[in-house]
Amino acid sequence: MAHTQRQLHLGAFVYGVGHHIAAWRYPETNTQGLFTFDFYKRFAQTAERGKFDMIFIEDIPALPEHLETSVQYTVPVRAEPLTLLSGLASVTSRIGLAGTVSTTYSEPYHVARKFASLDHLSRGRAAWNAVTTSMEITSQNFGQDHHLDHSVRYERAEEFVEVVTSLWDSWEEDALHIDKASGLFADADKVHAIDHRGRFFNVKGPLSVPRTPQGRPVLVQAGSSDTGQNFAAKTAEVVFTAWQTLEEAQAFYDSLKGRMERYGRSRDQLKILPGVLPVIGSREREAKEKEAQLQELVLPEVGLSMVSRTLRIDLSAYPLDGPVPDLPDAAEINGGKSRYQLLVDMARREQLTIRQLVARVTGARGHKTISGTPEQIAGHLESWFVNGGCDGFNIMPPYLPGGLDEFVEQVIPILQARGLYRTEYSGTTLREHLGLSVPDNKFLLKARHQHA
Amino acid sequence: MAHTQRQLHLGAFVYGVGHHIAAWRYPETNTQGLFTFDFYKRFAQTAERGKFDMIFIEDIPALPEHLETSVQYTVPVRAEPLTLLSGLASVTSRIGLAGTVSTTYSEPYHVARKFASLDHLSRGRAAWNAVTTSMEITSQNFGQDHHLDHSVRYERAEEFVEVVTSLWDSWEEDALHIDKASGLFADADKVHAIDHRGRFFNVKGPLSVPRTPQGRPVLVQAGSSDTGQNFAAKTAEVVFTAWQTLEEAQAFYDSLKGRMERYGRSRDQLKILPGVLPVIGSREREAKEKEAQLQELVLPEVGLSMVSRTLRIDLSAYPLDGPVPDLPDAAEINGGKSRYQLLVDMARREQLTIRQLVARVTGARGHKTISGTPEQIAGHLESWFVNGGCDGFNIMPPYLPGGLDEFVEQVIPILQARGLYRTEYSGTTLREHLGLSVPDNKFLLKARHQHA
Repeated sequence: MAHTQRQLHLGAFVYGVGHHIAAWRYPETNTQGLFTFDFYKRFAQTAERGKFDMIFIEDIPALPEHLETSVQYTVPVRAEPLTLLSGLASVTSRIGLAGTVSTTYSEPYHVARKFASLDHLSRGRAAWNAVTTSMEITSQNFGQDHHLDHSVRYERAEEFVEVVTSLWDSWEEDALHIDKASGLFADADKVHAIDHRGRFFNVKGPLSVPRTPQGRPVLVQAGSSDTGQNFAAKTAEVVFTAWQTLEEAQAFYDSLKGRMERYGRSRDQLKILPGVLPVIGSREREAKEKEAQLQELVLPEVGLSMVSRTLRIDLSAYPLDGPVPDLPDAAEINGGKSRYQLLVDMARREQLTIRQLVARVTGARGHKTISGTPEQIAGHLESWFVNGGCDGFNIMPPYLPGGLDEFVEQVIPILQARGLYRTEYSGTTLREHLGLSVPDNKFLLKARHQHA
Repeated sequence: MAHTQRQLHLGAFVYGVGHHIAAWRYPETNTQGLFTFDFYKRFAQTAERGKFDMIFIEDIPALPEHLETSVQYTVPVRAEPLTLLSGLASVTSRIGLAGTVSTTYSEPYHVARKFASLDHLSRGRAAWNAVTTSMEITSQNFGQDHHLDHSVRYERAEEFVEVVTSLWDSWEEDALHIDKASGLFADADKVHAIDHRGRFFNVKGPLSVPRTPQGRPVLVQAGSSDTGQNFAAKTAEVVFTAWQTLEEAQAFYDSLKGRMERYGRSRDQLKILPGVLPVIGSREREAKEKEAQLQELVLPEVGLSMVSRTLRIDLSAYPLDGPVPDLPDAAEINGGKSRYQLLVDMARREQLTIRQLVARVTGARGHKTISGTPEQIAGHLESWFVNGGCDGFNIMPPYLPGGLDEFVEQVIPILQARGLYRTEYSGTTLREHLGLSVPDNKFLLKARHQHA
């Protein structure tokens, strides 16, 4: 019976015109759709047809450093996530809407207000992916000549999330009266200034948006470093991550969930969803050929420069068929530590040459690629899910719109038939889809504490 | 012939559940609609049916200071404007979408990116109302204990707009190739870092969004002080303003348009739209009764506290039926100077008591209220328009949704019959509706200059 089984949670990850780095060159890809609303509307409606928990949009508020390669050969342009999600809210009715906003380059009052607004206008479907932004060049678009240190970015992020959740709680649920006869709009005693004074932020509040349908929008995070895990264990409700093997995924799953108790949280208050890039064929050979075809569309300079960027070393100075050079530990770098470590571990474990490493990671940017038949892909997802590797997946279609269509039409029905996945939404909010309760309102907890 | 006449431009101004301060208590008002998307969707679609140039959303990222009055008796809660406009973009096809974002509490890279995204997703209908934010308490939501001085706010605003327009120009129109065969996505030589280093901002660029359908989103401003007028004369394409008499409107119109030449701009590159709050009745007496009914719904403490806030003096310490006390010149205050001066001038000119001043300004917040038959209202609009008072109006329905429905159904047809107003959109972008050309790309101008 589907009802008694633990259920998979799925995100549909929007990324340009597809996740494969050469997606835009793939014949079936609608590359012209990049800035038309209809392209994203089709994506969101297809994902909703597939009963996904949510769509997810990443973000970096900058273009990558080397315009010669990034702009000439890849698709680094993006619509701003909240603009896009708000548009999609009005053409969907159930699916969750998760968007990324950096805590390093934003103000908490703006972020709290935007996601609260989206939660109201979508009737309870908003989620915020709080990231610290690892790409150094971003700092130069925001008046800073140097990127903040990794640890300082996380300290700022923690305080930022603290301020945002306080603002979301600043209106109690029953503050609004809206009584035309007496003229009482709201009970001022249930609307709280937050009076936050901290290291990074001073914010008075209250928010100018009342408490939202979900109580609070869902909190998402994506960092996998030790610092990132503690941050997630304390506050995140969904974590996106990237692993190549089930063993890595299991170790991370146990490590992160194991940290939650010290923050007074139970393991089911957080869902872990690794990214997966599925390349689907009706036969395995067809899928492998499709993957090879995508890989052939990657211009060599693009892959090399991409991996060089992640590893913070110019690999073009080394022989392509020689070994990946020795690299320092993640602790010594000031960037996206978990992605860095993933590549270093992969190169060491499999003793890869530079050419091999580039081929392996350019496609899915470090995420797991699975190419095979729908049954093989469903089997892989089930295996990670039932063996303690995850609570679901963030699905990364290699090219669009076809990559998502195929997943929804061919893989979802298998997962449903196996009782692993919903055949209809049972709730209306993203919290309901994910099985997440609403965190208690801080101001009510405080009041209770004072009475006790 | 309609074609040969100069045409009125109209904005439909969204403000809570209506512009009258007591709108929410009015029997016909849909007060529950405040945070439902369908409420705003109906507003936008009605305005589009009325062939309005644009809808317009104001913004203050804070609640007013005195929660006891503001939250208890008025409707200070709002959805964040860009969230709302993006949602409305997908349920409309022609009408312009103008939203307010403060230059005092934002980062130019974010603002440039959001409006560029909205311009793409709406196919050329975005406009940014750049305001400096006059409400002092806002500063406390953004880490500042004191509000920036009026003049510093404008200096920051000028640099802010300079950065934003440079970012909008950072992709040349023909930079995108999107050539699948060769793998060339964009011409890196036509994508420019802006390398801005100024007093308030250091921004490297380029924007991560290519040049938009309108070239640049339309620039709106609303300040009417001397500093505000110079800023508008230099950069604004639409100006919202508030006047009580045709003479004031004419003087402002001449003053602002007269300043444009010194910035190398022609008078038709800027449209001036005063706000008007129409109270419509099938007979004049019915309209006056409706206005009186709305006015009776204003609780006395609300009006007094609102006017006290604008005048920066606690009027409850003075006799209600005594004269408005002497007040300093606008030059000496650090807030919304033009609204302040408007009230001071009105009180002096008409020798109003405090009670009379409160009654006059609480309804429309200083904007012009016209109550009368559809013919009388159309006549008033025509008179200001043909006598050099304005290029059109920002229509402020007193209550919603009825106030806009009535205007579209009863006043618009009269304006159309008189040949003053479009019966169908002739273009698809907001620039086309307003008859505004696209400003030249700064990087092309620079290149031309270097070649000459």
